[in-house]
Amino acid sequence: MNPTIRILGIDPGLRNTGWGVIDVTGTNLKFVASGTVHSTQALALAERLVELHDGLTRVIEDYVPDEAAVEQTFVNKDAGATLKLGQARGIALLVPGLKRLPIGEYLPNLIKKTVVGAGHGDKKQIRMMVKVLMPKATFNSDDAADALAIAVCHAHHRGAAAAAARVAARIGQ
Amino acid sequence: MNPTIRILGIDPGLRNTGWGVIDVTGTNLKFVASGTVHSTQALALAERLVELHDGLTRVIEDYVPDEAAVEQTFVNKDAGATLKLGQARGIALLVPGLKRLPIGEYLPNLIKKTVVGAGHGDKKQIRMMVKVLMPKATFNSDDAADALAIAVCHAHHRGAAAAAARVAARIGQ
Repeated sequence: MNPTIRILGIDPGLRNTGWGVIDVTGTNLKFVASGTVHSTQALALAERLVELHDGLTRVIEDYVPDEAAVEQTFVNKDAGATLKLGQARGIALLVPGLKRLPIGEYLPNLIKKTVVGAGHGDKKQIRMMVKVLMPKATFNSDDAADALAIAVCHAHHRGAAAAAARVAARIGQ
Repeated sequence: MNPTIRILGIDPGLRNTGWGVIDVTGTNLKFVASGTVHSTQALALAERLVELHDGLTRVIEDYVPDEAAVEQTFVNKDAGATLKLGQARGIALLVPGLKRLPIGEYLPNLIKKTVVGAGHGDKKQIRMMVKVLMPKATFNSDDAADALAIAVCHAHHRGAAAAAARVAARIGQ
């Protein structure tokens, strides 16, 4: 019997950080929960980062995931926007890091390709495919849906990595 | 008698984050300590951010500053470098934020102008002026010297802000 692995996907953003938790047993995916951690725009940057930290810490304490996955992205709009995203992403990586969870990082194109089947799927296609893959999935924002897609991407690729390791071990025998 | 305020300056960077602690009593500046928190390049990004987090947490626990100051900067080189800096800067703001310290953010030009007297001082001028302002100051890296300059900048401008508040209060009477 395959063990069940619980994965936390995180879509980082300073204003809204999406999160999604799924259980993976072999190739079976099960929706557990999803949501969005908001930061208060009126607060100072450090206080907003504390809000993201506290929100993500609560999610990890509530759902106790085994592994985490975070989108590996930057906005090309301008350096200011990239710096903002970087700061939020720092927290999104730090919080599971502090809990010593293994963390996968995935490029947006791989996430879309894994979930939608094409590297250029839009937000709507991602929401739809998350529902097809896990009919019981609910999400209160595009960021939460993206976070579930990131978790699904990790479920596929961590499996591939583990299979490759098994083959390598067999060849090694 | 003026109270003594202890300020922690932080110059964030993924590879090396400089820190410097000074005591400010009125216009008097006293060097307390400085150093550099390194992250291990061979580790995964999340683990490197945990190293920065743990190092800065230790500095705050060892020196118990009243306030913190962080450089407000972005590299224009490329989005990847800016994202990296943003991630480190997120941790540099989060750690004093978690300790509920008031945090000042200062642009590089203001820091240079405050310490060197011109907005375009180089690293060497900053090191020299930090030594002129605080003869007992020692630093093991440019990042640590920059962190001391950031603390000095906060010492000047927090004072100006407090004086403005006192004048405003007097006018209000």
